[in-house]
Amino acid sequence: MTRWAPGARERLQTAALDLFVEQGYDETTVSQIAARAGVTDRTFFRHFTDKRESLFTGSEVLVTLFTGAVERSTATDPVDLAAAALAAVTEFFPEERRTWSRRRTAVVLANPALAEREQLKMVTIAQALARALRERGLPDPAATLLGRSTVTVFQVAFDRWLTEDEDRPMADLLQDTLSALRATLAPRG
Amino acid sequence: MTRWAPGARERLQTAALDLFVEQGYDETTVSQIAARAGVTDRTFFRHFTDKRESLFTGSEVLVTLFTGAVERSTATDPVDLAAAALAAVTEFFPEERRTWSRRRTAVVLANPALAEREQLKMVTIAQALARALRERGLPDPAATLLGRSTVTVFQVAFDRWLTEDEDRPMADLLQDTLSALRATLAPRG
Repeated sequence: MTRWAPGARERLQTAALDLFVEQGYDETTVSQIAARAGVTDRTFFRHFTDKRESLFTGSEVLVTLFTGAVERSTATDPVDLAAAALAAVTEFFPEERRTWSRRRTAVVLANPALAEREQLKMVTIAQALARALRERGLPDPAATLLGRSTVTVFQVAFDRWLTEDEDRPMADLLQDTLSALRATLAPRG
Repeated sequence: MTRWAPGARERLQTAALDLFVEQGYDETTVSQIAARAGVTDRTFFRHFTDKRESLFTGSEVLVTLFTGAVERSTATDPVDLAAAALAAVTEFFPEERRTWSRRRTAVVLANPALAEREQLKMVTIAQALARALRERGLPDPAATLLGRSTVTVFQVAFDRWLTEDEDRPMADLLQDTLSALRATLAPRG
């Protein structure tokens, strides 16, 4: 058993998800995950504080992608800032991630505590995004409304991306969902 | 001590909030709340399952007001349905409730577990609203997007209503916030 190996983090996440699917989340221990990944328990704890965290590390990546895009964008129009933020997260959802995401979401939705964690993660992202928009000069309530709306678009597009038989790439679904939100709320002439 | 009294529910909620503010949420027991309200512990448990519930009973009322308005509305335009839902909840936030709501929110925000409960409550309301919109014939993703957006408008308007020195009524803030969301996301010509 190697004490440290390149890719140990990814192997641990895969091992954890496989075990959660095979035998249930509650029934799976950190030791089982580490053994399946071929590492020690200590190595597991070098990467994650607990088994739950192995499912939720994406959330910090998402926050950074969303807020970084807002900080770097030269756009001044609020919708362009939202579109830039959404475009930036597509890199985190390449085609080869779709199957993993479907399996991960099935585990999360089957466990109420995990489903709650997922929702709260989204609230945190909306707050970080609103802060970034405020720092770009967007006043409130627009910054708070746009931060939340951008996360709403992300959540709906992500659910669509995971739907069986859906094969459009995440980028298309994000754009399409943003357009759908704008059309739904559009002033009529 | 009366075993049952009209208004016991409201007295219990007031007593609970007073004690949470005075001595802290974690430090307050159900027995203290019952004693302050002049009822027995058994009476408390006839109204609420635990002390937390005394702060969160409004959520079911909100769900009913939101979804009932969508069910009864004759509007076909999505924005009109959202506006009808928002107009329906104003009755739950009369001026005399503002001080109570400010104190309640201070208690909720000071306790991370309560703040999480509050956020999750909003997710539940958005889901119920999306379901009502779907039943009114609005297809997805519009129904999900509009359900979430309506709750976003509600949350932002509610926060504004609670702001110190804010004296506009809830109805005005809901309308103003819905307009702000639509303006922020409006297609440019």
